[in-house]
Amino acid sequence: MAEHENYTSYLAEEYVIQEEPFYLPVGDEIELFEVAYSQNLPVLLKGPTGTGKTRFVEYMSYRLGRPLTKLTPNKDGSAQEEQKSIPLMTIACHEDLTASDLVGRYLLEGDETRWVDGPLARAVKAGAICYLDEIVEARKDTTVLIHPLTDHRRILPIDKRGEVLEAHDGFQLVVSYNPGYQSALKDLKHSTRQRFMALELTHPPADLEARIVQHESGVSEEMSVALAKLGEKARNLKDHGLQEGVGTRLLIYAGKLIARGIAPRRACQVAVTWALTDDQQVQRSVDEVVNSIFE
Amino acid sequence: MAEHENYTSYLAEEYVIQEEPFYLPVGDEIELFEVAYSQNLPVLLKGPTGTGKTRFVEYMSYRLGRPLTKLTPNKDGSAQEEQKSIPLMTIACHEDLTASDLVGRYLLEGDETRWVDGPLARAVKAGAICYLDEIVEARKDTTVLIHPLTDHRRILPIDKRGEVLEAHDGFQLVVSYNPGYQSALKDLKHSTRQRFMALELTHPPADLEARIVQHESGVSEEMSVALAKLGEKARNLKDHGLQEGVGTRLLIYAGKLIARGIAPRRACQVAVTWALTDDQQVQRSVDEVVNSIFE
Amino acid sequence: MAEHENYTSYLAEEYVIQEEPFYLPVGDEIELFEVAYSQNLPVLLKGPTGTGKTRFVEYMSYRLGRPLTKLTPNKDGSAQEEQKSIPLMTIACHEDLTASDLVGRYLLEGDETRWVDGPLARAVKAGAICYLDEIVEARKDTTVLIHPLTDHRRILPIDKRGEVLEAHDGFQLVVSYNPGYQSALKDLKHSTRQRFMALELTHPPADLEARIVQHESGVSEEMSVALAKLGEKARNLKDHGLQEGVGTRLLIYAGKLIARGIAPRRACQVAVTWALTDDQQVQRSVDEVVNSIFE
Amino acid sequence: MAEHENYTSYLAEEYVIQEEPFYLPVGDEIELFEVAYSQNLPVLLKGPTGTGKTRFVEYMSYRLGRPLTKLTPNKDGSAQEEQKSIPLMTIACHEDLTASDLVGRYLLEGDETRWVDGPLARAVKAGAICYLDEIVEARKDTTVLIHPLTDHRRILPIDKRGEVLEAHDGFQLVVSYNPGYQSALKDLKHSTRQRFMALELTHPPADLEARIVQHESGVSEEMSVALAKLGEKARNLKDHGLQEGVGTRLLIYAGKLIARGIAPRRACQVAVTWALTDDQQVQRSVDEVVNSIFE
Amino acid sequence: MAEHENYTSYLAEEYVIQEEPFYLPVGDEIELFEVAYSQNLPVLLKGPTGTGKTRFVEYMSYRLGRPLTKLTPNKDGSAQEEQKSIPLMTIACHEDLTASDLVGRYLLEGDETRWVDGPLARAVKAGAICYLDEIVEARKDTTVLIHPLTDHRRILPIDKRGEVLEAHDGFQLVVSYNPGYQSALKDLKHSTRQRFMALELTHPPADLEARIVQHESGVSEEMSVALAKLGEKARNLKDHGLQEGVGTRLLIYAGKLIARGIAPRRACQVAVTWALTDDQQVQRSVDEVVNSIFE
Amino acid sequence: MAEHENYTSYLAEEYVIQEEPFYLPVGDEIELFEVAYSQNLPVLLKGPTGTGKTRFVEYMSYRLGRPLTKLTPNKDGSAQEEQKSIPLMTIACHEDLTASDLVGRYLLEGDETRWVDGPLARAVKAGAICYLDEIVEARKDTTVLIHPLTDHRRILPIDKRGEVLEAHDGFQLVVSYNPGYQSALKDLKHSTRQRFMALELTHPPADLEARIVQHESGVSEEMSVALAKLGEKARNLKDHGLQEGVGTRLLIYAGKLIARGIAPRRACQVAVTWALTDDQQVQRSVDEVVNSIFE
Repeated sequence: MAEHENYTSYLAEEYVIQEEPFYLPVGDEIELFEVAYSQNLPVLLKGPTGTGKTRFVEYMSYRLGRPLTKLTPNKDGSAQEEQKSIPLMTIACHEDLTASDLVGRYLLEGDETRWVDGPLARAVKAGAICYLDEIVEARKDTTVLIHPLTDHRRILPIDKRGEVLEAHDGFQLVVSYNPGYQSALKDLKHSTRQRFMALELTHPPADLEARIVQHESGVSEEMSVALAKLGEKARNLKDHGLQEGVGTRLLIYAGKLIARGIAPRRACQVAVTWALTDDQQVQRSVDEVVNSIFE
Repeated sequence: MAEHENYTSYLAEEYVIQEEPFYLPVGDEIELFEVAYSQNLPVLLKGPTGTGKTRFVEYMSYRLGRPLTKLTPNKDGSAQEEQKSIPLMTIACHEDLTASDLVGRYLLEGDETRWVDGPLARAVKAGAICYLDEIVEARKDTTVLIHPLTDHRRILPIDKRGEVLEAHDGFQLVVSYNPGYQSALKDLKHSTRQRFMALELTHPPADLEARIVQHESGVSEEMSVALAKLGEKARNLKDHGLQEGVGTRLLIYAGKLIARGIAPRRACQVAVTWALTDDQQVQRSVDEVVNSIFE
Repeated sequence: MAEHENYTSYLAEEYVIQEEPFYLPVGDEIELFEVAYSQNLPVLLKGPTGTGKTRFVEYMSYRLGRPLTKLTPNKDGSAQEEQKSIPLMTIACHEDLTASDLVGRYLLEGDETRWVDGPLARAVKAGAICYLDEIVEARKDTTVLIHPLTDHRRILPIDKRGEVLEAHDGFQLVVSYNPGYQSALKDLKHSTRQRFMALELTHPPADLEARIVQHESGVSEEMSVALAKLGEKARNLKDHGLQEGVGTRLLIYAGKLIARGIAPRRACQVAVTWALTDDQQVQRSVDEVVNSIFE
Repeated sequence: MAEHENYTSYLAEEYVIQEEPFYLPVGDEIELFEVAYSQNLPVLLKGPTGTGKTRFVEYMSYRLGRPLTKLTPNKDGSAQEEQKSIPLMTIACHEDLTASDLVGRYLLEGDETRWVDGPLARAVKAGAICYLDEIVEARKDTTVLIHPLTDHRRILPIDKRGEVLEAHDGFQLVVSYNPGYQSALKDLKHSTRQRFMALELTHPPADLEARIVQHESGVSEEMSVALAKLGEKARNLKDHGLQEGVGTRLLIYAGKLIARGIAPRRACQVAVTWALTDDQQVQRSVDEVVNSIFE
Repeated sequence: MAEHENYTSYLAEEYVIQEEPFYLPVGDEIELFEVAYSQNLPVLLKGPTGTGKTRFVEYMSYRLGRPLTKLTPNKDGSAQEEQKSIPLMTIACHEDLTASDLVGRYLLEGDETRWVDGPLARAVKAGAICYLDEIVEARKDTTVLIHPLTDHRRILPIDKRGEVLEAHDGFQLVVSYNPGYQSALKDLKHSTRQRFMALELTHPPADLEARIVQHESGVSEEMSVALAKLGEKARNLKDHGLQEGVGTRLLIYAGKLIARGIAPRRACQVAVTWALTDDQQVQRSVDEVVNSIFE
Repeated sequence: MAEHENYTSYLAEEYVIQEEPFYLPVGDEIELFEVAYSQNLPVLLKGPTGTGKTRFVEYMSYRLGRPLTKLTPNKDGSAQEEQKSIPLMTIACHEDLTASDLVGRYLLEGDETRWVDGPLARAVKAGAICYLDEIVEARKDTTVLIHPLTDHRRILPIDKRGEVLEAHDGFQLVVSYNPGYQSALKDLKHSTRQRFMALELTHPPADLEARIVQHESGVSEEMSVALAKLGEKARNLKDHGLQEGVGTRLLIYAGKLIARGIAPRRACQVAVTWALTDDQQVQRSVDEVVNSIFE
């Protein structure tokens, strides 16, 4: 196993997006995010699976890393002298994520207990963008933890150390959630949601989606247009029992299979139809859409 | 990451509000709180999201820090010789907050276990105002813990140390809860609630709210009046499915976006409409209100 | 923070009531408690919130501290030579209170684990009165723990030490519960409740309550009579949706506010009406009672 | 607190009943228990609260401590040369009792972890009678733990040590449960219950109960007969909403109060009526019975 | 307590059945088990309480310990040279049994953490027969743990050590469950159950059962025939509310009591009727059967 | 116990399939998997119990270990120079599998806490194929953990170390689940499932299955054809209450018993009928199928 040590690891607060992520804006979301960042407004991203919420945050983290004084007046980012990097901390929320997982904990080490900051404390100190993905999945203690960070106080109390941490100027809190999953049990409480400016993200329009699929999968323009058309049509199958529309990612998967020689219909079956649903009737509906496009 | 250590932290019991918080009283709440403080009566703040409960406690903590002998007769606080500071400990309650989180715990350190006071024990010792935000969210052990602190005993038993702590003279317990969330499962038991004087807080009247929005967001007086009007009208949409009225904070967010050049309708959409609700029909109702104001 | 160390703490078993608590007996409860104490009968106090269960136990703990030989024949306690103190351990039960919280646990300390007695073990050893407040809230392991202490054995098995502790002569177990909260889930099992002599406590009659309010709040006799009348009338509002009657404590709060210059109607609103209920209709009923008294 | 260290403690396996407990047999339960003990048959005691299950086990533990060869032929125990003591380990089961609580656990001590036997392992090694009171309350891991101890194997596997313990000859397992509490959730599984010989215990007949009450409370014979009559009559109130009959213990409590000068009706009210039930209507029924006896 | 150290303990993997267990085969179960063992097929034993599943596994463990080359051709086991022992690890499953309980865990010991194998890892290494009794009671992590041991891989991954253990040739997994307890919540998943050859065990026929009862209890042949008849008849009472038939063990208990002089009817009442059920009507039905046999 | 140390263990990341697993492809699943591997597409295997999901992953792990440059153009794998091994990490998911179980944890060792990688971190570093079997059984924190590994980021954040791990080139994530078990509670969220290319696996056709049974059990071709026929027919009994079809494994078990001399009908009864179901009526249906084949 010679290649066993052949991997890369970073300290979380040094994880800075180095290359410009491929992102095609749908509307004014970039401008709104920039103003929110400059005004310390926390941002809530709403939208279904596969609308590029993670990609958007990565793009903004890269983009905002450029000189801040140029941000609002000059949006094309041409003046690139003295690049300032903004780390991005992404935390996928789930119902077992504890407050300690976010804030930090004591570890026993030799003769002393050593405090280890959690990702949120690291982000608060480093002035990072902290992205809590699918915030409604988090336990209540996690949700409540971010309250003092999202009002005029901008502090993070670390109860176990009896300490209060003031957020670094560059710190920005971004959370996301999928209103489609919204339920009585898993809803954002108003005392939490009224702390965020909200952006609703949607699937990109067909022409944009075709450009994304082509860029990411390497298929021809014609094929990418066909796949984007498939995406659009499949999203109209909601009344046929398809719980959630197909995301751009699955179209890219299909493209990648096609680019490696798999027949388009078969590629769409394994990357779209079967990936989307287990229901045989719904599968037939999706396959019909596939067949109507790749005759 | 040169700026990484560029943050500020305090011991929790040294967190004293240094600048006078901007607070505009709605009624006699300041006078009532001052009497309660001088008489050692615990205070329960009731009210919906965004009525400024946290801000009010911060203001009182700042205000009561001035010479106590002047408090009741002279409310303008002009005589500022020998400022006395009262720390404020704010604890956001949640269902995973344990009694140990509040009282303290033993930590292993080298050859000895060291006791670390929790925020409540720190507040009891330091004579701080201890604010338990959203008390009904707390676990039962937390709720019960405050009983001996809220009657004539004013003690905090620390079972793990076999110790009883008498509260410092200046110690004051303040709790808040939102009756709108009240349910069979999450209600204050009578044995708890009959230990507090209760203040019901409401959204500020439109003229007051306009002054707050103007002060906090930097928009013009005209714009702040329009935003306060939006707040008032949106709160009347309860019958249209809007679970909870818009808080002042979201109006300030809209103001901040407008002040940075975002068009008022768009600013209100992302800061008010989308932030308030995911329901498309309710969103349309709110947007109509927005459009009727920003024609 | 010069005054930070300016607090008092006791070892729990040294917490002895030093001054005679103000207690006005309603019936023969003092005599019955004294016999129970002398006969080693555990006592169950039943009654709604605010009927002074905690105060009664504190009073008995103080009273029984006087020479035991004089107790039954001579109830005025005039012969005070050689005062014997009986510590009081009060434990507020809740659903997260574990058996270890009561009995004790091992703590790691340097090279050894040190055993730390819990409050029940301390009480058993010190011959204290141990008061388990709201016993039905406790977890089953806690409830079961007291069984061998409440029959002829009077022992406390400490399983983690493989040890059996015999109770000190002066040890007395007192528990309380509020039958109003009684439910299928939170009921005392017969195997537990048939171990106690039971005293049912009620709200004091109006004349007694007026004397208590006057003594504790410092209002005039006339005002205290009015407040006691308010208490009596408000308790008759049960059919109007008032889940539980107002306790004496809230009347004292109202008195304290009035004594500091707050208008009686406003004082009763914040200390009684709002403290009792969030229901606007019920609040109106209570306010009507207030207005009928303080016209 | 000079008397603070003035208590007695034993190692659990040295807890031997020293004085003959006062026990009046109702039928052939002593003989059956003796045969079960000599044949290594585990015993299940069934019966409602207050029928003396604990007392019976204590009596048998004392009785069986006498020379075993004399046990069956000669029941009066006159030949007392060479007393052999059998320790009794009583464990009150509850839903939080873990297998480790019974079997043992490792404790960290200085440079080594030390194993500490739990009460069941101690009983298995010491040849004690191990009495698991209210076995149905125990968690499933506890119940399953006793299986290999109750068949021909008579072993206790200690998984954490990778060890198997063979039971000492004198070891006997006794469990109890109250069929009245039996429910779908809390029932003995057949794989458990078919491991025990079962004895059903009932409240003693009136003449026997009178003798017990007289012996334990010190009241006159006449009074004890009256109290036994109360017990008998109160047990017939089941159709009047009295969930469970009054146990002998409460009658003894009433006797003790009467013996110290409390009036019989008042003594029965606090020791029987109020102790039995919170339901005012049922209380009236019990009080009527009391009044009919103590006219 | 001189006899306190007077007990025997084994390392679990040295627990080998030394004496031939008394086992009377009902059908070809011995042959099927032998083939399964030689072919590494895991075995599932199904059957109600008291059909001797544990005894059968013990017998097979003893029997298979004889020279393996002789196993299938020659079933009488006459050639006993060079006895090879196969340890038996029995684990009673319950809902709190964790994967660590089976696989092992780290223990802190002085300056190092020491790994301690759990019973399953010990069995895998020692080539033991590992018997998981009542497998459906186990938590899901336990059930899943045995998957790689029951297919062609025959490995046990020890995640906490990052290690994979290959099973010793002689290792055999046997599980049991009682289909009568089968419920939606506690059922064997198909992905688990389709890994076992299944043997359904039933109560032995009357003549066989009589021989077992006689051998184990020491009663006369006539009495044992009567008891076996009781067993057969009681099993036909299922329609009379008897949830589960009487197992052979209870008949043996009755026999042991009779052999020590207890009257047959009384012996059957405490060992069969009361042990089987708490329902008085069902008890009457069983007693009738008893009386019809022991007139 | 001389043979006690006679077992084999590997470090998990050195567990490489050494011999070519016997795998007969049903369709183009091998080609699709190879493309997915080369394109870093995560793979989801769907299908009922016993369709060979684990075997397929093992086969692909062995096959992909051969020189990667030859993979797609040349599928017969004839050119075997310079074998590259790809370890396989199989993790059986269950509801108690924590994120720490997968990622790693700190262990105390002497004077330092030592970090121990979990199986997922080991796979990420070693470039292994990581197979999460029955992913829907996993807790939410486990499911969410794999998100950043399954998009363009291919990173594994290790929160407890404040570290981000980039996946080795050869790392591939494969998950499986059984749509038949799909329920409201245990379903793959769309945000998870839209990260995988999906392959639906089915029971092999009869001729293929016969070849597998013959190869694995050693029965004659005729017998293996008969057993495959049994498999096919038994799968048609779904309408007769057979929840899930018989997997190939059970047919192999039957074959192994037959090859060792057990009569075919009896072999099928214990290996198929009883293994499949406890329902007597369904058992009769299966037995009828068995009898119609083995007349």
